[in-house]
Amino acid sequence: MSAVTHGWHRLSSGNPLVEFVDACLRGPAQVMFQNNPLTGLIILVAIAWGAVESGQPRIFGGAVLGLVVGTATAIVLQVDRTSLRQGMFGFSPLLTGIAVPTFLDQRPLMWLYLVLGAIATTVLTLALNAVFKTWGLTAFTFPFVLTTWVLLLAAYQFDKFTVLTNAKPMLPGEAALPGGSFDWDLVPIFLRGVSQVYLVNSWVSGLLMVIALLINSRWSALFALVGSVGATLLALWFGAAGDSLDKGLYGFNAVLTAIAVGAVMHRPGVLVTVYTVFGIALTLFVQMGLATVLTPLAIPVLTGPFNIATWLLLLPRRHFAPVPNHERVKETIVSTVKRTV
Amino acid sequence: MSAVTHGWHRLSSGNPLVEFVDACLRGPAQVMFQNNPLTGLIILVAIAWGAVESGQPRIFGGAVLGLVVGTATAIVLQVDRTSLRQGMFGFSPLLTGIAVPTFLDQRPLMWLYLVLGAIATTVLTLALNAVFKTWGLTAFTFPFVLTTWVLLLAAYQFDKFTVLTNAKPMLPGEAALPGGSFDWDLVPIFLRGVSQVYLVNSWVSGLLMVIALLINSRWSALFALVGSVGATLLALWFGAAGDSLDKGLYGFNAVLTAIAVGAVMHRPGVLVTVYTVFGIALTLFVQMGLATVLTPLAIPVLTGPFNIATWLLLLPRRHFAPVPNHERVKETIVSTVKRTV
Amino acid sequence: MSAVTHGWHRLSSGNPLVEFVDACLRGPAQVMFQNNPLTGLIILVAIAWGAVESGQPRIFGGAVLGLVVGTATAIVLQVDRTSLRQGMFGFSPLLTGIAVPTFLDQRPLMWLYLVLGAIATTVLTLALNAVFKTWGLTAFTFPFVLTTWVLLLAAYQFDKFTVLTNAKPMLPGEAALPGGSFDWDLVPIFLRGVSQVYLVNSWVSGLLMVIALLINSRWSALFALVGSVGATLLALWFGAAGDSLDKGLYGFNAVLTAIAVGAVMHRPGVLVTVYTVFGIALTLFVQMGLATVLTPLAIPVLTGPFNIATWLLLLPRRHFAPVPNHERVKETIVSTVKRTV
Repeated sequence: MSAVTHGWHRLSSGNPLVEFVDACLRGPAQVMFQNNPLTGLIILVAIAWGAVESGQPRIFGGAVLGLVVGTATAIVLQVDRTSLRQGMFGFSPLLTGIAVPTFLDQRPLMWLYLVLGAIATTVLTLALNAVFKTWGLTAFTFPFVLTTWVLLLAAYQFDKFTVLTNAKPMLPGEAALPGGSFDWDLVPIFLRGVSQVYLVNSWVSGLLMVIALLINSRWSALFALVGSVGATLLALWFGAAGDSLDKGLYGFNAVLTAIAVGAVMHRPGVLVTVYTVFGIALTLFVQMGLATVLTPLAIPVLTGPFNIATWLLLLPRRHFAPVPNHERVKETIVSTVKRTV
Repeated sequence: MSAVTHGWHRLSSGNPLVEFVDACLRGPAQVMFQNNPLTGLIILVAIAWGAVESGQPRIFGGAVLGLVVGTATAIVLQVDRTSLRQGMFGFSPLLTGIAVPTFLDQRPLMWLYLVLGAIATTVLTLALNAVFKTWGLTAFTFPFVLTTWVLLLAAYQFDKFTVLTNAKPMLPGEAALPGGSFDWDLVPIFLRGVSQVYLVNSWVSGLLMVIALLINSRWSALFALVGSVGATLLALWFGAAGDSLDKGLYGFNAVLTAIAVGAVMHRPGVLVTVYTVFGIALTLFVQMGLATVLTPLAIPVLTGPFNIATWLLLLPRRHFAPVPNHERVKETIVSTVKRTV
Repeated sequence: MSAVTHGWHRLSSGNPLVEFVDACLRGPAQVMFQNNPLTGLIILVAIAWGAVESGQPRIFGGAVLGLVVGTATAIVLQVDRTSLRQGMFGFSPLLTGIAVPTFLDQRPLMWLYLVLGAIATTVLTLALNAVFKTWGLTAFTFPFVLTTWVLLLAAYQFDKFTVLTNAKPMLPGEAALPGGSFDWDLVPIFLRGVSQVYLVNSWVSGLLMVIALLINSRWSALFALVGSVGATLLALWFGAAGDSLDKGLYGFNAVLTAIAVGAVMHRPGVLVTVYTVFGIALTLFVQMGLATVLTPLAIPVLTGPFNIATWLLLLPRRHFAPVPNHERVKETIVSTVKRTV
């Protein structure tokens, strides 16, 4: 494997096109804080599998288009080269590119919407990173969240767009919590909790994504599963809606929080694991609270809860004991903060 | 009195348990910017009185549990010792501990909810103080507000929790403004305006709290009453809902703003008093506006309006004439900002 | 013309009253980033024309009162003299003074509301500039937006105030998008897009405002029209509501974004123009999204979308190629940031 990586590394430096492809491949991996083109490639395959399985191959097209347009926009805007090469400007537009064909009906104008959204996601990545730099943080996937919320909310005002979410705008508590479809087959649910990070509802895709994590970081793969299992079981205990439980929708935000707090931003350890378990609960509560706030607007929470919870968990870090894992931090966060913004 | 204080001070330094009790006692006082364990003790008695009077003694249990869990969490997270001893990590979890049994129905799981909420309140205190430090501010009671909002909003999504607020989610303007129960007995209303700072609806408790303030700072006691009287009369003039008026619900946010702006952050004086009176009106408007925003979600404003209005009033301070009262500022705010965060 | 300007300049320096009038006259011009009392005077005439044309002369009275009270409040609060003289503390209170009589029914108490609102707008200008300084930005017209939102939202809770907006609180998607009244007479619509910056629905006023811009900066006049034309045509293409289109309501936020991004903050050029066109689209989407969010509260977006979009467009500026136009920047933004706050 290391020979392959080494060969790819030699191939990619110097050749602009291969460099661009390399940066694009790292994008899908950086959603889960991994800086590895092979991890990204496997995740792309997992997204393609989910798109085909659900009968909507255009979603995979949207993913690739978003990734390419977002990364290209970053080049036009002359962002920091190191961050660009690490995939730091691909991961949020990738998600926007998945979300637009998932939530809007298919018509030619949808693709213009998607391209505008991918450009906006890159502009917002630069803008929000400049803000969060103040507190030693980055914007994570929030540029994707904000862009997609604005696109879906704006679509209400335009005759030419129809939002496809199942939800209708209503007041909180109007709809009874549905509980029907849940059947206690927990392992696929835990894996769908991972695949929903990329808006994919497929345990096969989730399994591929865990493998993609394993290739780059065993701790990340472990904490991804801890996040999905923990949040799903807690939601089950408190009596959350069964159909969302079944689709893994209570897991994906906690997956990202657990990787960030438990495996990437701190050196894994006992105290950090306790803090991460608390963080999983915090993420679930923020997700449920945000779901209530968004009920009258009928838009999904996306990965907003992960962003909010992880910012809150990282902000007090000076008081928190764990020795930071300098190598990883250098690779992912510090470089973004110091060089990109 | 000073002999008692002196003796307590000698007793509390050195003995970890007594230090912990001392820090916990200062918590209730710090809600109203007072650094005095006796003030805190009297306020605890006032909260107990209100809980018993309303037939809900569990609310007092929640208050003590929140205070202890929040302060203990701060110790585990190794916060700044000086701030901890001043009660800076007890006041927001205390309020969360009061809010949870007030707004959620009684069942064993409620207590888990409360403990998680108290821990989260301390984490948020550290996180938000890190953010507000940028502008020389602290988070005040906003960690309590945010935590309680999230807990109540999340409860909508869980079968195992029922929110007890009288309000139902509705669109603004759907319900007629009720005006019935108001009977012009103003003095108890002004005192309930003070007790509502701690979610207590009792003029006896309010009177005890004013006495608790008097012990530590006459200016604070005076401005607390000015805030309650001013905001209540303004709400009455503009035709606000009579039943909320009767419970003192238009007073409590202005009580906190008036203490902060009029007595603690600036040296009391004529210009400062004029600015404080404007601040009382600003707080009432922010409270009414926020109440409209939260109508579709049916959650209470809590002390959110005080936080927002006081941040806005303190941010331009460089342009504002009054000589700051260095002693008080050093005691309360600067120490939090510089040392805690 | 320059002789007149020079004479006025000599007259205004030294005489406090003439200085005050000069600062007030620059206020209306600074809404559109112009530092010129004659531009401001023509805009005041355009506002008066709109008020009389719509049969509501009190709106012009509100505009003047807001401008004077806001500027006077800034003097009392001892703000930076240079910024004050440039009209930096008049432009937001002017807009609050127009909004209050536009959206609230006429009764004596409305004028108290307006005066309190103008004072609050100046306090918020200082407060929000202190926050935005962190990122090299200013608060633009957001103090007006926030103050007016709070006043309108608070009015729901008071018997003594009635909000006059046509909208009723409803869930998004409840009302069909109306399309009736649009008649393809585009030039007046483009001009109303400019006049709506000041909440005026009149193409004559819009024409006067374009002339007022031309006197001070041809680029600003050009980009104002580009913003109005671009956003209106895009809204038309996507199928936005016809009656709002007719009133110029999709143009005014983009007018301000286009002046700021295309003519004032960067030296006009090809790359900047491309970025500005993207900015016009971004502003329209943010406006449509915000309109959906505010539907349950039935309050207007005002110039909120311009503020949000322009902050997002300016934040990444280090990565963006254009050479800044130092002279203009010195005149308008830097001075506010460095000296005022």
